[in-house]
Amino acid sequence: MSLEPLVPNRLDDEDSALVILDQTLLPNEVKYLALHTNEEICHAIKTLQVRGAPAIGVAAGYGAYLGAKSAPEDSFETFYTHFQQICKDLAASRPTAVNLFWALKRMEQKALSLKAHPVKAIKAALKAEALAIHEEDIAQNKAISQYGLSLLKPGDGLLTHCNAGPIATSMYGTALGPILLGQEKGYNFKVFADETRPLLQGARLTAFELHRAGVDVTLICDNMASMVMKNGWVQACLVGCDRVAANGDAANKIGTSGVAILAKHYGIPFYVLGPTTTIDLNTPTGADIPIEQRDPGEIRSMWYEKPMAPDCKMFNPAFDVTDHELIAGIITEKGIARSPYTRFLRALFEKG
Amino acid sequence: MSLEPLVPNRLDDEDSALVILDQTLLPNEVKYLALHTNEEICHAIKTLQVRGAPAIGVAAGYGAYLGAKSAPEDSFETFYTHFQQICKDLAASRPTAVNLFWALKRMEQKALSLKAHPVKAIKAALKAEALAIHEEDIAQNKAISQYGLSLLKPGDGLLTHCNAGPIATSMYGTALGPILLGQEKGYNFKVFADETRPLLQGARLTAFELHRAGVDVTLICDNMASMVMKNGWVQACLVGCDRVAANGDAANKIGTSGVAILAKHYGIPFYVLGPTTTIDLNTPTGADIPIEQRDPGEIRSMWYEKPMAPDCKMFNPAFDVTDHELIAGIITEKGIARSPYTRFLRALFEKG
Repeated sequence: MSLEPLVPNRLDDEDSALVILDQTLLPNEVKYLALHTNEEICHAIKTLQVRGAPAIGVAAGYGAYLGAKSAPEDSFETFYTHFQQICKDLAASRPTAVNLFWALKRMEQKALSLKAHPVKAIKAALKAEALAIHEEDIAQNKAISQYGLSLLKPGDGLLTHCNAGPIATSMYGTALGPILLGQEKGYNFKVFADETRPLLQGARLTAFELHRAGVDVTLICDNMASMVMKNGWVQACLVGCDRVAANGDAANKIGTSGVAILAKHYGIPFYVLGPTTTIDLNTPTGADIPIEQRDPGEIRSMWYEKPMAPDCKMFNPAFDVTDHELIAGIITEKGIARSPYTRFLRALFEKG
Repeated sequence: MSLEPLVPNRLDDEDSALVILDQTLLPNEVKYLALHTNEEICHAIKTLQVRGAPAIGVAAGYGAYLGAKSAPEDSFETFYTHFQQICKDLAASRPTAVNLFWALKRMEQKALSLKAHPVKAIKAALKAEALAIHEEDIAQNKAISQYGLSLLKPGDGLLTHCNAGPIATSMYGTALGPILLGQEKGYNFKVFADETRPLLQGARLTAFELHRAGVDVTLICDNMASMVMKNGWVQACLVGCDRVAANGDAANKIGTSGVAILAKHYGIPFYVLGPTTTIDLNTPTGADIPIEQRDPGEIRSMWYEKPMAPDCKMFNPAFDVTDHELIAGIITEKGIARSPYTRFLRALFEKG
C-alpha cells in the first residue's frame, strides 16, 4: 500500500488547532480542516465532519485542551470555570456516544487533580492527557483487532454496518480492525458493507477505506443484508458501538439491531467491537441510552437534487439499541465479553 | 380528496398507444407517456416507468394487443408468428414477476383459441382480452383490499416496503389496498413506509400515494424498521409480491425478507398481498424463482451528483425471497391462504 494513511484527528504543529479529516467530503475529496475555536470543534462533531465514537472522544480531548489553552491563568477557579464551560459545550455536541463524555470527564479530573499547581502547568498536563487519550486509543484498536481476528478464519465472509474503521477511531478501527489486520496477514476476507442510510457512512467511508486497503469489499444497500446472509456468504457480522450498557445492550448506528436479528435468524455470530471506554456501567440497560434524533432533511433531500416525499413526515433516529441476547461477543481491548454480560463486562473493568 | 386519480396504464382514445404514468418522475412530476411501439413498451417496463407486478401484467396485455394490431392479416400463421415475437420481446423485459408471463400467455391462448376466425376478429378479441385483464385487476384489487382490511383494527400501526399501491396495480393496490380502503372508512392507520433502496419506491411512490390520499404516513430508511417495530408502533406488515411459489415462498422487492424476519422477531404478523395471477404453482419453491440482477449504478450513482464508492464492487438484486414460514397469510382476491401453503394455495386455484 503506497497510499498515505488517513488521520481523523491530530494536534497541529503550532499546537494551536485540531486538524481533522473532513469525513463529509469522502470519498470524493480528502481534505483536512484546522479547527481553532471550540465553536468550530463542536460544529465539526455535530455535522459529522469528525465522527465515530472513539474519534469523537479523541477530538473532545484535544478540543478541551485547546479550550483550556486560552483560559485565564490568574487563579484555578477562574481557569476551571472557563474550562468547564468549554467541556460543557463539547459534551452537548452529540448525546449518544459515551466516549465523548468519558474523554471530557477525564480531562476535567486531570485538571482538578492538579488544582494546587500553577494553571500553566495544568495546561501542559492537559495537553499530555489529550495525547495520552489518543495514544491509548491506538493501542486499544490494535488489541481489539487481535482479539477480533482470533474469532475469524481465512476466507470468511464478513458483514459490517456503518463505519467503525481507522477514520472513526485512531488506527485499524474497531469493527474494521480485525478485517484490516487480517488483510495484512493474508486472510482474504470477503466483506459486505451496508451502505447505511441516510448518511451513507458504509458507502462513503467503509467501502472507501476497505477498497483503499486492498480488501475484497462489496457494497450493498441495507435491505440486501438478509439475502447476502441467506446465500451463505456471511460467516460473521462485525459492528462498532457508540455506547454499551451494563447488561450488554449496545447502541450503534441505526439499523444495527436489524442486522443482529437477521444474523440470529440465519445462525451467524454477531460481534460488537469497541474500547472499554464505550462501555458505560452507569447505564443499566439499552432503554436508558438517549437516542439522538436528527434532521429529517437527511432522509428527504440531503443527497438529492429534488427532495423525495417533500411533504411527508420522517423519523430519523441516529442510533438503535441491539439487545444483548443477540450479541455473540463484545470485543474490547481487554478481552472478549460473552453472555452473561452483566458479570463479564464488570469483570473487564475490574481487570484494570 | 379532490386530486385526480393516477392511472398507471390505459389505452388511448385513438386505440393506438398505451398511455402510462411515468413513475420514474414521481413525486416531482405527474407525466403520462403515450407508447406506440413494442420497443417503447419494453423499454418502459425495463426502466420501471411502469412497474409493480400487476401493472406490468396489464401493460403487457395492452402491449400484446397493440403489437397484434399492426401484424399482417393474410393468414393466421403469419399473424401468429408476428404476434409471438411481440410477446417474446415483452416477456424478456423483466424476469421475476410472473404476472407479465401470465398476461402474455393469456393473450396468446386467446389468439390460438380463435385460430379458425379471421385475423381481424382475432385482433378485436385481443383488445377485449387486454381490457378484461385490466378490469379483472381492478376487481381483484378491491377484493384483496377487503380481505386485508378484515385482518386490521382501526388505529393500527402498519409497515410496508416498496410500493404496491394503485400505481403498481390498477386501483387501491395490493399491500396499500387495505390501507386506502381503511382510509375511506375512517380507520386512521399510522403507516410507516420503508424508503426501499436503491430505487426509493417507498420514498417516491408509497409516501407520495398515501400522503396524497390523506393517510398518516411516516417515511423511514429501510434500516429503521427494526426500531419502529421495537417501539411497538407496528401491529402488522403488509407487502406486495412479484411471484409466489407453490409452497408459499414469496419473491418481492429486495429487503422484504428482512422485514419478515424482523416482524417474526418482534411477534408482528407479516402479510403478503397479491392477486392469484402472482401465484405460480409451476414454481415449486422460492429457490426456483429467477432473481433479476440490476445495474450497480443504481446503488453507486443514480441519485447523486458524485458517485458513492466509485471503484467498489456492488451487489444489486431487485428482489429477494421470503420463506413461507415467515408469512402469516397470503391475501388474494379469492381469500386468505394460511400455512400449510402448499395445500391452501392449490385450494384457492381449485376454487375457480
